[in-house]
Amino acid sequence: MRAVDLIRKKRDSGEHSREEIAYLITGYTKGDIPDYQMAAWLMAAWIRGLSRAETAALTETMLHSGEVVDHSDLPMKKVDKHSTGGIGDKTSLILAPIVAAGGLAVPMISGRGLGHTGGTLDKLESIPGFNTALSLDDFHRVLKECGMSLIGQTSEIAPADKKIYALRDVTSTVESIGLICASIMSKKLAEGIDALVLDVKTGSGAFMAKEEDAIRLAEIMVDTARRMGKKCVALLTDMDQPLGRMAGHSNEVLESLDVLKGAGPADLRDLSIELSAWMFFLGERT
Amino acid sequence: MRAVDLIRKKRDSGEHSREEIAYLITGYTKGDIPDYQMAAWLMAAWIRGLSRAETAALTETMLHSGEVVDHSDLPMKKVDKHSTGGIGDKTSLILAPIVAAGGLAVPMISGRGLGHTGGTLDKLESIPGFNTALSLDDFHRVLKECGMSLIGQTSEIAPADKKIYALRDVTSTVESIGLICASIMSKKLAEGIDALVLDVKTGSGAFMAKEEDAIRLAEIMVDTARRMGKKCVALLTDMDQPLGRMAGHSNEVLESLDVLKGAGPADLRDLSIELSAWMFFLGERT
Repeated sequence: MRAVDLIRKKRDSGEHSREEIAYLITGYTKGDIPDYQMAAWLMAAWIRGLSRAETAALTETMLHSGEVVDHSDLPMKKVDKHSTGGIGDKTSLILAPIVAAGGLAVPMISGRGLGHTGGTLDKLESIPGFNTALSLDDFHRVLKECGMSLIGQTSEIAPADKKIYALRDVTSTVESIGLICASIMSKKLAEGIDALVLDVKTGSGAFMAKEEDAIRLAEIMVDTARRMGKKCVALLTDMDQPLGRMAGHSNEVLESLDVLKGAGPADLRDLSIELSAWMFFLGERT
Repeated sequence: MRAVDLIRKKRDSGEHSREEIAYLITGYTKGDIPDYQMAAWLMAAWIRGLSRAETAALTETMLHSGEVVDHSDLPMKKVDKHSTGGIGDKTSLILAPIVAAGGLAVPMISGRGLGHTGGTLDKLESIPGFNTALSLDDFHRVLKECGMSLIGQTSEIAPADKKIYALRDVTSTVESIGLICASIMSKKLAEGIDALVLDVKTGSGAFMAKEEDAIRLAEIMVDTARRMGKKCVALLTDMDQPLGRMAGHSNEVLESLDVLKGAGPADLRDLSIELSAWMFFLGERT
């Protein structure tokens, strides 16, 4: 197999086999395939698109480029939620304690702010003394002790995604449904989860402003998770206006506490109930 | 201006200004723009295509990335022929002496064999003692003395093309009409010519097997030359069978001598007469 032939195949709208995707991604991660060949392939993939089977193969290869956390010594189901992000979206801070309190394990590896949206990690770090830089062993230990564990990305998780994302950023190949899906899902599935609830935002404050794009992304993410043996649902939720009334890291922590105490703005409370209900359903705690 | 924005523009089927093309190509040649960004842009340009104005701007920037030979001390018009190549195509060896004998100057910078086709340079070097590795000063001196001068590519000629061609070769972005045109024309116009006759081959033994592709390439090459103030015509000629009866470097030299002596196979003789007639016409020796 040669990278130049695989680039040509995608350029000419061909569909890659699982082995071809694995060859490309593994070769690139190891440094056998140079940046310029991956850049040409990424642009061809951006323009020609990736099929569902290709996207699942990409996700799987990227997932297994690094460690997949093993929480199998914990008897309960492990469930996470991922949001595509928006202004005032702080539901992770609310869902993790609710779902842990309900008897499921919530292993969350979260990201920083992206574009105009704040990251769960940044919000958590506004709590004085909160340490998000745990090892994967400590991630597991905290999950075992607390029923939930929220940490930042580590270098062991999906290194292929890290390298490819950096290249996408400088080659204008970020906004591709298939590539976005593989990037998100490879990191989420590395958390060691059984099920995942997706909160796909749509509206003027979301990355996917158009509803049809949000639907396409939601469908391919659910399909990818299911192809990899995980339970998954996606909710399409409104981001035409900020979620709740608070935006800004520490403000969002305070508003999350309000919701956990049974108060807080109705839109945020309703969405948190909806998402946690799905997490319980997929985690078979109904 | 940022390379990442220009990549996005081409990805989204936009048309570049002359300044944008110059920024990309000059930046890449100087090493300010890395291989991976040029690779992504080349793939976008391959798939989305380049307009005639973009192709002319690309040709012009690549031409001026290196030296353009100045033969202005010679009073006669300088005329060359370029063929897209095929089996047994040896007309350069025949045309140069005919057209020089007729009072025009023929400055030819030729290439090596490409794919299944032989190169003029390889054929010339089958003549014992023939030196094709002349400096541009010697190229000019021989032209002045003999009325024709045939040498190989030098590092001063269109260095941007050399760097970009090497990248196209490993990123499956070779077979693009606009990129092919700019690559050929930037090198040909660097010879210091007033006019160019193009012999665009079509048929099973040509690079452009399909006639419509050959026509498109011919049209854009003629358009590019004219936009740059050069006289240019293109002939579409048959390459469904080898030209003449001889193939192989030294055999082709011998067959060329036959034609120059008024003999040789009819197809080769007819094509040589046709091409040299056009060279005389464009060189205003009619």
